[in-house]
Amino acid sequence: MITVGVIGAGRIGQLHIDNLALLPSVKIKSVADVYIDNIYDWAQQRDIVNITNNPMAIIQDPEIDAILICSPTTTHMELIKAAARAKKHIFCEKPITFSTTSTQEALTVVKEQGVKLQVGFNRRFDTNFRTIRNQIANGVIGTAHTLRITSRDPHPPPIEYVKTSGGLFMDMMIHDFDMARYVMQSDVVEVHAKGAVLIDEKIGEVGDVDTAIVLLTFANGSIGTIENSRQAVYGYDQRLEVFGELGALVVENNRPSNITHFSTEGVITDKPYHFFLERYRQAYIDEMKEFAAAIINNTDIVCTGNDGLQAERIAEAAKKSMQIGRPVSIS
Amino acid sequence: MITVGVIGAGRIGQLHIDNLALLPSVKIKSVADVYIDNIYDWAQQRDIVNITNNPMAIIQDPEIDAILICSPTTTHMELIKAAARAKKHIFCEKPITFSTTSTQEALTVVKEQGVKLQVGFNRRFDTNFRTIRNQIANGVIGTAHTLRITSRDPHPPPIEYVKTSGGLFMDMMIHDFDMARYVMQSDVVEVHAKGAVLIDEKIGEVGDVDTAIVLLTFANGSIGTIENSRQAVYGYDQRLEVFGELGALVVENNRPSNITHFSTEGVITDKPYHFFLERYRQAYIDEMKEFAAAIINNTDIVCTGNDGLQAERIAEAAKKSMQIGRPVSIS
Amino acid sequence: MITVGVIGAGRIGQLHIDNLALLPSVKIKSVADVYIDNIYDWAQQRDIVNITNNPMAIIQDPEIDAILICSPTTTHMELIKAAARAKKHIFCEKPITFSTTSTQEALTVVKEQGVKLQVGFNRRFDTNFRTIRNQIANGVIGTAHTLRITSRDPHPPPIEYVKTSGGLFMDMMIHDFDMARYVMQSDVVEVHAKGAVLIDEKIGEVGDVDTAIVLLTFANGSIGTIENSRQAVYGYDQRLEVFGELGALVVENNRPSNITHFSTEGVITDKPYHFFLERYRQAYIDEMKEFAAAIINNTDIVCTGNDGLQAERIAEAAKKSMQIGRPVSIS
Amino acid sequence: MITVGVIGAGRIGQLHIDNLALLPSVKIKSVADVYIDNIYDWAQQRDIVNITNNPMAIIQDPEIDAILICSPTTTHMELIKAAARAKKHIFCEKPITFSTTSTQEALTVVKEQGVKLQVGFNRRFDTNFRTIRNQIANGVIGTAHTLRITSRDPHPPPIEYVKTSGGLFMDMMIHDFDMARYVMQSDVVEVHAKGAVLIDEKIGEVGDVDTAIVLLTFANGSIGTIENSRQAVYGYDQRLEVFGELGALVVENNRPSNITHFSTEGVITDKPYHFFLERYRQAYIDEMKEFAAAIINNTDIVCTGNDGLQAERIAEAAKKSMQIGRPVSIS
Repeated sequence: MITVGVIGAGRIGQLHIDNLALLPSVKIKSVADVYIDNIYDWAQQRDIVNITNNPMAIIQDPEIDAILICSPTTTHMELIKAAARAKKHIFCEKPITFSTTSTQEALTVVKEQGVKLQVGFNRRFDTNFRTIRNQIANGVIGTAHTLRITSRDPHPPPIEYVKTSGGLFMDMMIHDFDMARYVMQSDVVEVHAKGAVLIDEKIGEVGDVDTAIVLLTFANGSIGTIENSRQAVYGYDQRLEVFGELGALVVENNRPSNITHFSTEGVITDKPYHFFLERYRQAYIDEMKEFAAAIINNTDIVCTGNDGLQAERIAEAAKKSMQIGRPVSIS
Repeated sequence: MITVGVIGAGRIGQLHIDNLALLPSVKIKSVADVYIDNIYDWAQQRDIVNITNNPMAIIQDPEIDAILICSPTTTHMELIKAAARAKKHIFCEKPITFSTTSTQEALTVVKEQGVKLQVGFNRRFDTNFRTIRNQIANGVIGTAHTLRITSRDPHPPPIEYVKTSGGLFMDMMIHDFDMARYVMQSDVVEVHAKGAVLIDEKIGEVGDVDTAIVLLTFANGSIGTIENSRQAVYGYDQRLEVFGELGALVVENNRPSNITHFSTEGVITDKPYHFFLERYRQAYIDEMKEFAAAIINNTDIVCTGNDGLQAERIAEAAKKSMQIGRPVSIS
Repeated sequence: MITVGVIGAGRIGQLHIDNLALLPSVKIKSVADVYIDNIYDWAQQRDIVNITNNPMAIIQDPEIDAILICSPTTTHMELIKAAARAKKHIFCEKPITFSTTSTQEALTVVKEQGVKLQVGFNRRFDTNFRTIRNQIANGVIGTAHTLRITSRDPHPPPIEYVKTSGGLFMDMMIHDFDMARYVMQSDVVEVHAKGAVLIDEKIGEVGDVDTAIVLLTFANGSIGTIENSRQAVYGYDQRLEVFGELGALVVENNRPSNITHFSTEGVITDKPYHFFLERYRQAYIDEMKEFAAAIINNTDIVCTGNDGLQAERIAEAAKKSMQIGRPVSIS
Repeated sequence: MITVGVIGAGRIGQLHIDNLALLPSVKIKSVADVYIDNIYDWAQQRDIVNITNNPMAIIQDPEIDAILICSPTTTHMELIKAAARAKKHIFCEKPITFSTTSTQEALTVVKEQGVKLQVGFNRRFDTNFRTIRNQIANGVIGTAHTLRITSRDPHPPPIEYVKTSGGLFMDMMIHDFDMARYVMQSDVVEVHAKGAVLIDEKIGEVGDVDTAIVLLTFANGSIGTIENSRQAVYGYDQRLEVFGELGALVVENNRPSNITHFSTEGVITDKPYHFFLERYRQAYIDEMKEFAAAIINNTDIVCTGNDGLQAERIAEAAKKSMQIGRPVSIS
């Protein structure tokens, strides 16, 4: 049995709280949010006894074993350091910080304090992606030669969010950078990024792109691409292909139903799930389940602080590559 | 908030208990089973305070609002009557009884006492089948002309079970008879059944069949077929097609993953889920959720005692048709 | 090299002529049709030297090795007998005649004269169906247990055609009766047919049905169904499934392209080919190729007069079964 | 009616000859090949009257309207110039030459002489790709944002061929460069190529790569990737996706049959066609049909000399990009 406190109760914080509530081995004692009035009723309905706008009140609570950090990215570094120093295990949403320097600073403290840190790469807990990784590890397609990740959102975030998001590579493609390392089981050594503003000019005006393709080179010699778009009108498009010596493995989209409609307009099946909350519903549950289990059983974390750091390094290199118009090496 | 007691804690009773435990509005107070020693530890871990081998102790408990009857079919009639007379709402596994006469006797008492009775046709709660029913009701394919249900188990039950199962039509195809009425939204008026022993001679020796096709005529003039097999080596095969004036709707199998493997052997996707517990995992959860909600909100039951009775009438007619080698009318 | 004459140059006769023209080993010398004016130009463009309204002029031409009979079914018996007596090999469109008695009379003459007779069951030459038959013969699914054939036309024929068509079982489902024997490699011993008028009342007024399901029992103990509809608004629906001891084999529809369209309306693929001319384009070519090859190399015919007769026997029994409302045995 | 001569009767030359033979409007009068002994019998069986080892004998024949150039790439420039000066229309296999300078020299003569030149980009004649291009032109997905082409051979060519092939970009990916321009209907302005030797070290030893990904930027602002592999063990993999404002269009592989096999090993469908001769069988026929029609009707050529030149320019840029490790602009 572990006792947990959650810092930041926006959409993703609330999602994690509801998923933790399904676990008999977890008690959610406290939640902190700057907008305490907004969440008061919500938290009370969930029997959370301690509702505060002061994160340190949670971090310093001796009854609490683990902290979930779901507040804005700019707050992550200080909260991680404080939580680690208070000997709390930590779950932190992605990215850890907006700069690899800050992330390294936070990770150093985590390491010194010997606490566990899990980063919120929820897709690692999806059955499809986990299975494909295991199949590759088991040699089902022999040596991997190429990777292709397609990852498209149904619509762009509000422009206010875009401004402070860290940019497409750090905010959105970071999931795919982690997935690339996860399925290929090799680090990325070079990245070449190409971005474009094709969906909404306002995204360009605030210095970001809405469409991008990144060409990756892996340490093991394989190569691959990631494509991101901020707007696929047909829903949340999450596909992946690894091609190798003995064949190829492809993850297709999950869909709400397995109904096929033969009509005068064609043969129609469901669109993909509309967005990440539906598509990764079970993955988010399993992410919390495995975080709790790793603490209770003192076992390894599925996605570590270093995984977070490596994804951020690729994101930084991609952003730089796009700016200078050339490939960038990652040492 | 309702308080529930469960009679019969075999595989399906335990499944329902675990699913009820996910509902904040349900308290499971008691469980009865003839093999009380087998379930004692299991039930205690679930904080069930009252573990008994006497069903009547549960039925007569004034704190209990609803009873789940998951004991063998031969016990259903007496338990339903007793529970109804004690003013408990009832969930009863399929079939209600092995004879429509007994079922009618039980339903008469249920009606007199004014309690709710839900029959365990779990497939009605599956997203695919519910969606297709709604699409048909909404006229997506206009008037329905034909129905096809394919329903195959991964392997036959033990021969001891077959002996007391009521036969393939009452034990297995009864789900499909209910599904036929559910999606076609019309009663069955004639049935012609053909059975065969193609998988295991022992099934024939105890007077049953392991393979069957039934040709159905509906009150609304449409026609259809149901095919059952006790053994599909590739897993639990659950498909359905309704064809009509404006097109066709097909439910394909659900599969554990959406991975496609391009190999020298062909292009391979997952087999269907292996059996009903995996295939209908969410449907079983929703079945309990809606049973509880119908009691709490005093709303209609999704599958009523009459639905149970009608499916049994078709099963009886199918058995008779197979025996006499001719179609049998259902008035 | 063989020389061929064609009797009946309607849609199907013209199709065969164009397909024969692709074969370097075949010379089409003559064509006969009652509407000679309609086809004169058409035939001349194809370098057919002899255009006549007298079939006997073709049958008695000593240069001609083989006759294609593509005239109305009512003319088949006399033409077959005459052609056989003139020692011509014969290709005859399905059905051979509208009565098994007449067909047997024609086949007796064919046998006496020792000529080859191929019946126009074009689907036997389709790659999908031929492959599935071979896979079953090779034991890919072990013993076959059940068969399902779905066969739907895009729209009903003109009511004038329906009147003289011989009825749905003899005109349309006869292809499926032959396919059933072809893939199951066993004769049909019992048939139970259910028909309905759901598409066009006029079809009912002339004594026919537009929708039908037939339940078949095979000599080898397996069972199956065939479903026919005269109108599938999405095109020509031609599917088949054989289920057995070691798995199942399913033929899905062929489609004009392999394009998938992800849209706001769903994920859309092509409808099936619109009708038999497109769907079985290559099968019709191969049907002629193999007919010519069987004559030139004196090898066995793929679908014989007996295959035609057996399909007609099933069609007759199906019609009778529908009329009397009971299964009918085929000795 | 046109009269044609063919220079080069290797695999592809023979294929074109057999396809031309299907066209009633084309007479093949002459064929030239350096290995005249090898093709003598083959050509005689096809009623080709003039079999020579001297291409100029064909080019200077006043009866001949059009020349097919299917000889090695190194011979193309001189043959094109000679044929154009003899006022013959020309079909030339891809690439036109190994250098854009030589290609331009040849095209200048073609232009001066006013003859038609069609380049052998057979995939433009494939139904799938042609349909998707038309759908994009018709606005089915609005503005195109990204392109992805997957193109994999079943096995590498002999190493002797690789040596003189011009390299993967000029020999293999040139088809995809043309396809990129064809479906996106926009020129490529920048290319960044990454290559690897992952299949056969010998390919690296002769200075080539066997695996490559190219990132393309189009004049209209869209971006895309092409992936090539010399060895996909499951067959010839030819897929394409265009994603845009209103959705996505995907071309999946064509397969020999539409059979699905439900087995204990999974649900298995056919591998793609094994190689280009099967996959593009109909496209090769239509390529010849449209070449002949363009001459007879004096209409536009589907893939012109300029299309050939542009694909070569991209291939040259890709090779340079791979060598210098940076994107290369195409003015």
